[in-house]
Amino acid sequence: MLKTRLFTPGPTPVLPDALRVMSDPILHHRTSDFMAVLEEVRAGLKDLLGTTQEVLVLASSGTGVMEGAVCNLFSAGDKVIVVRGGKFGERWGEIARAYGLVEVALDIEAGRAPTVDDLKKRVSENLDAKAILLQACETSTGVDFPIEEIAAYTRTLPMLLVVDAISAIGISPFEMDRWGVDAVVTGSQKGLMLPPGLGFVCLNERAWEFQEKAGLPRYYFDFAKERQSIVKNQTAYTPAVSLIVGLREVLRFFKKEGKEKIFRNYQKMSAAMRAAAQAMQLELFAKRPSPGLVSIRVPQGIDGKKIVKQMRDEHQMMIAGGQGALSGKIIRISCMGHMDGFDLIAVFAALENVLRSQGAKIPFEKGVAALEKELLERA
Amino acid sequence: MLKTRLFTPGPTPVLPDALRVMSDPILHHRTSDFMAVLEEVRAGLKDLLGTTQEVLVLASSGTGVMEGAVCNLFSAGDKVIVVRGGKFGERWGEIARAYGLVEVALDIEAGRAPTVDDLKKRVSENLDAKAILLQACETSTGVDFPIEEIAAYTRTLPMLLVVDAISAIGISPFEMDRWGVDAVVTGSQKGLMLPPGLGFVCLNERAWEFQEKAGLPRYYFDFAKERQSIVKNQTAYTPAVSLIVGLREVLRFFKKEGKEKIFRNYQKMSAAMRAAAQAMQLELFAKRPSPGLVSIRVPQGIDGKKIVKQMRDEHQMMIAGGQGALSGKIIRISCMGHMDGFDLIAVFAALENVLRSQGAKIPFEKGVAALEKELLERA
Repeated sequence: MLKTRLFTPGPTPVLPDALRVMSDPILHHRTSDFMAVLEEVRAGLKDLLGTTQEVLVLASSGTGVMEGAVCNLFSAGDKVIVVRGGKFGERWGEIARAYGLVEVALDIEAGRAPTVDDLKKRVSENLDAKAILLQACETSTGVDFPIEEIAAYTRTLPMLLVVDAISAIGISPFEMDRWGVDAVVTGSQKGLMLPPGLGFVCLNERAWEFQEKAGLPRYYFDFAKERQSIVKNQTAYTPAVSLIVGLREVLRFFKKEGKEKIFRNYQKMSAAMRAAAQAMQLELFAKRPSPGLVSIRVPQGIDGKKIVKQMRDEHQMMIAGGQGALSGKIIRISCMGHMDGFDLIAVFAALENVLRSQGAKIPFEKGVAALEKELLERA
Repeated sequence: MLKTRLFTPGPTPVLPDALRVMSDPILHHRTSDFMAVLEEVRAGLKDLLGTTQEVLVLASSGTGVMEGAVCNLFSAGDKVIVVRGGKFGERWGEIARAYGLVEVALDIEAGRAPTVDDLKKRVSENLDAKAILLQACETSTGVDFPIEEIAAYTRTLPMLLVVDAISAIGISPFEMDRWGVDAVVTGSQKGLMLPPGLGFVCLNERAWEFQEKAGLPRYYFDFAKERQSIVKNQTAYTPAVSLIVGLREVLRFFKKEGKEKIFRNYQKMSAAMRAAAQAMQLELFAKRPSPGLVSIRVPQGIDGKKIVKQMRDEHQMMIAGGQGALSGKIIRISCMGHMDGFDLIAVFAALENVLRSQGAKIPFEKGVAALEKELLERA
């Protein structure tokens, strides 16, 4: 008998209290009961995003709210600078091109994060750009981008900073207002420890000014209509009620535990995974690693896709491989969601076993020992 | 102690088996376990829609897939005939205008359904229209539209028939292929007895030809990309996993019971509600009533909004009022979702009580008696 264990960077293991309430009989969304849920959720989301602005809640995957950001902020022909550090950066570009925007790409080597200097150069060549679109965490490479530093630079520019923080909110500190981020999108299935199906978006005053002037067509993702609704504790269209009821439990968990403690715990878990990989003499892939996952280069001569498959088939553990050009070359193990150190010990025990069975020359049981040391002895 | 009872035409009471599995630990969407769920779901959806075409599954409210239909089928400047028999017909028009289409409205008096003759007239004046957009059930008035008859006419025309069947699929027979409907959209929170959060769309070959030529921008709702994914038992973007796992239970329920039996049951329940309303000497509002709900004109001198409020405040029963111009003038009671005759007896017992307390001159206990007669004696 084996349990199924999820270490993919989305979906992530759901908080048990959230699972429980998602089985409650459904609330109607135009009732005071549901309005009370939404009111509590609004407050909790503001806290996690570090903003006094309203956070809009949509029934959608993360990609939907990324598209929503584009079609609410821009007009056809607008130029945008797209930071492409992996698959999700490319997605910003695909959406921008689908809507007839002019994409100026800033390509960043996979595994690296953009620096302020990278951006300054591209901005100086494109002062007419309307925005910079990027990730807070490029999940495809496991890299965190220095949003606070970047925003300190971009907040003085006449262009918006639009951040996909799908794998960052709930995982690491995010201070939208203090940093000066103009627009943030995120989703339910990463740090918010929920099933996929909710998208979130938040604009600051500068972004709302863009929103008023933006000419791209939109209806379901019309942020102005959603903003009018949410201040009345409603949504413009029928909301994903059960997921929002689950979200309330997650936000209560964040409030009870304290978000700083949760962020520190992710830091600690991801640092321990990196220590374990290094103890196994594996090469870390991300130069500026996310606290939500570790990305590891697969040893020469081994196919990363086979590692992922064997982890699943033999141990019922879901880890992620690389995407696109990184397919087979890296593996990614997430600690996002409802997760603890013992889960990580389990996944590295399985990984040591699988790697050795595929002929990797790794030292015996060093990875798990490193995790024990990092997670238990220092506790 | 009072139970909360949901008689709103969406969300509807969720099937208990679906509620139960939505609390299971989350599946990753790129696993064989989830692919097996999606394969089973695809087959069940085809059966309910009466089609051999793939039914696309999106994380979205119904409005999102309505918008998806528009931006996948048309180009800016295209003319579409919009049947406006209530709030949801108006929504088709709003979406069309948001995307720069030319809306030709066919306004139908609230409570009535469009006839083929109504359509013939508007079509003959607009032979250059690309499509007719309408509802299978106009939930805002409780009216069913004669889609089979309309499709028999429109299938010979060089324009598409695009049907919002959000309150029809799972409630009444729908034979997309046999009738010749070109595009269908629906959602999870009505006849599919699930929480809101899933949208569905199905195009026939003719509609896919339009899709290839359509020039409107789209990304999250790109049906071609979803079609490529779904034949591989995947979705283009992260799916709403828990809702889809719940959907499998609902579709198993339909298979086990037989959809015809479920449709007959809705027919019987809605006919019984109409008999009850008439026994109470209330006027039915819908001339061609839906099997999923009853719409009742509020007696003169009484405010329908107060009825809805008192039903909720005193009896914890959620019924719906009228929308827009019908606000306060009608009430709507749904039998969609996980519902039986005893639920209807309960809601009419409460309704008799509330109406009398507000001064309506209705005969004593005749409504409930009519329901008992219709639902129990003939059983």
